[in-house]
Amino acid sequence: MIGKQTWIIPDGFLQPNSKGDQISHEAVCVLNLTESSAVINLTFYFEDRDPMDLFFSECGPNRTHHIRLDKITDQEGNLVPRNIPYAIKVESNVPIIVQHSRLDTSQEALALFTTMAYAIES
Amino acid sequence: MIGKQTWIIPDGFLQPNSKGDQISHEAVCVLNLTESSAVINLTFYFEDRDPMDLFFSECGPNRTHHIRLDKITDQEGNLVPRNIPYAIKVESNVPIIVQHSRLDTSQEALALFTTMAYAIES
Amino acid sequence: MIGKQTWIIPDGFLQPNSKGDQISHEAVCVLNLTESSAVINLTFYFEDRDPMDLFFSECGPNRTHHIRLDKITDQEGNLVPRNIPYAIKVESNVPIIVQHSRLDTSQEALALFTTMAYAIES
Amino acid sequence: MIGKQTWIIPDGFLQPNSKGDQISHEAVCVLNLTESSAVINLTFYFEDRDPMDLFFSECGPNRTHHIRLDKITDQEGNLVPRNIPYAIKVESNVPIIVQHSRLDTSQEALALFTTMAYAIES
Repeated sequence: MIGKQTWIIPDGFLQPNSKGDQISHEAVCVLNLTESSAVINLTFYFEDRDPMDLFFSECGPNRTHHIRLDKITDQEGNLVPRNIPYAIKVESNVPIIVQHSRLDTSQEALALFTTMAYAIES
Repeated sequence: MIGKQTWIIPDGFLQPNSKGDQISHEAVCVLNLTESSAVINLTFYFEDRDPMDLFFSECGPNRTHHIRLDKITDQEGNLVPRNIPYAIKVESNVPIIVQHSRLDTSQEALALFTTMAYAIES
Repeated sequence: MIGKQTWIIPDGFLQPNSKGDQISHEAVCVLNLTESSAVINLTFYFEDRDPMDLFFSECGPNRTHHIRLDKITDQEGNLVPRNIPYAIKVESNVPIIVQHSRLDTSQEALALFTTMAYAIES
Repeated sequence: MIGKQTWIIPDGFLQPNSKGDQISHEAVCVLNLTESSAVINLTFYFEDRDPMDLFFSECGPNRTHHIRLDKITDQEGNLVPRNIPYAIKVESNVPIIVQHSRLDTSQEALALFTTMAYAIES
């Protein structure tokens, strides 16, 4: 099957400031090419505190999901904290493909970056 | 032979707004180092609807093709929809190498991002 | 274990100019998913001089560290030089995952880029 | 030895316009961790014409070289053409690691992108 079940993104950061009509955010973009729904668990790692690991999302078969990290909440209702460096582990019950992107609108003109996440061989 | 026949890009998005003389767009950039023409099939996956899979392009031997996703139409004349998250599967009859880039000119200064697509081992 | 002990980043550069309230910088972003602290050695390679290899950092177990390259000093107190192209080798005593990002604020609007570093198979 | 001898970059483009004091350009950034000088051959592929393959560069042992694609000339004195999509093959007589970056200053604020090149297994 196409993809991997575990992916890593070391550089996460939710820029606290936004200008214009687009809010600064990040997205974990998932594609599920299997015939089953993907149940996705996101774990966030920090520099000086324990990980937060109760974030869950889904992606249907033959669907993509661009998971907005500024909107997702964990099972206790917590948001991902802004203005703090973090890293992300993405785990799925079926193989998926994962890309990570950031939009920063803290200055007058926006900035973007993206990279494929790092796939862990199972 | 150099390259792979299937490549995946989870983060696709055609920014609907543009300022200045450059239009916001994405490109799937292909290099064909074989001796045959590459026939390329693009499938677009969405969050809440079925995939669109009738997009075709070509790339000659020892040629590159930067396929503009804001211009390509499928066999029924449909454009890739703007302002909706999508993911892309790129399939070719011969091995190719694939990179994906976005130009966003929705604010006064443009933004760019790029990544190598994710290669599927055949 | 998840990750690799050696990672390479060919395109390093500390932009000398900054505008606004964010300083131009780069970061080597590390995630340590092992149960031990990672001791990290950074070596900087240049175009016309010998490498600088006395930069050390740490990352705790289940922690991330976004190592700011404009702030780190080597064991003799030297900073990474600004305005000179360099490349980076990242070595760790335990497997880690490494991503590299740049923030450039030399013009009115910032620019960002990122990529996963190149993992060396051990 | 660390690295590969052949690397591919499908998305090349020299933006013809520049504003401010930084000129729009691309760089092929090389790191040579061997004990020998690397002799590097760059081939540029186009959409509608034959490749240009007479571009050569060097990178010393334990040195990096950020090869400016707006400055390099081939053995007949030709520059890489601006304002035309191209792709790049980078070949070296010893293993190297290759990253590709673009600076675009066509609007008031610059934009950057980067990616590791695609390594060909030998």
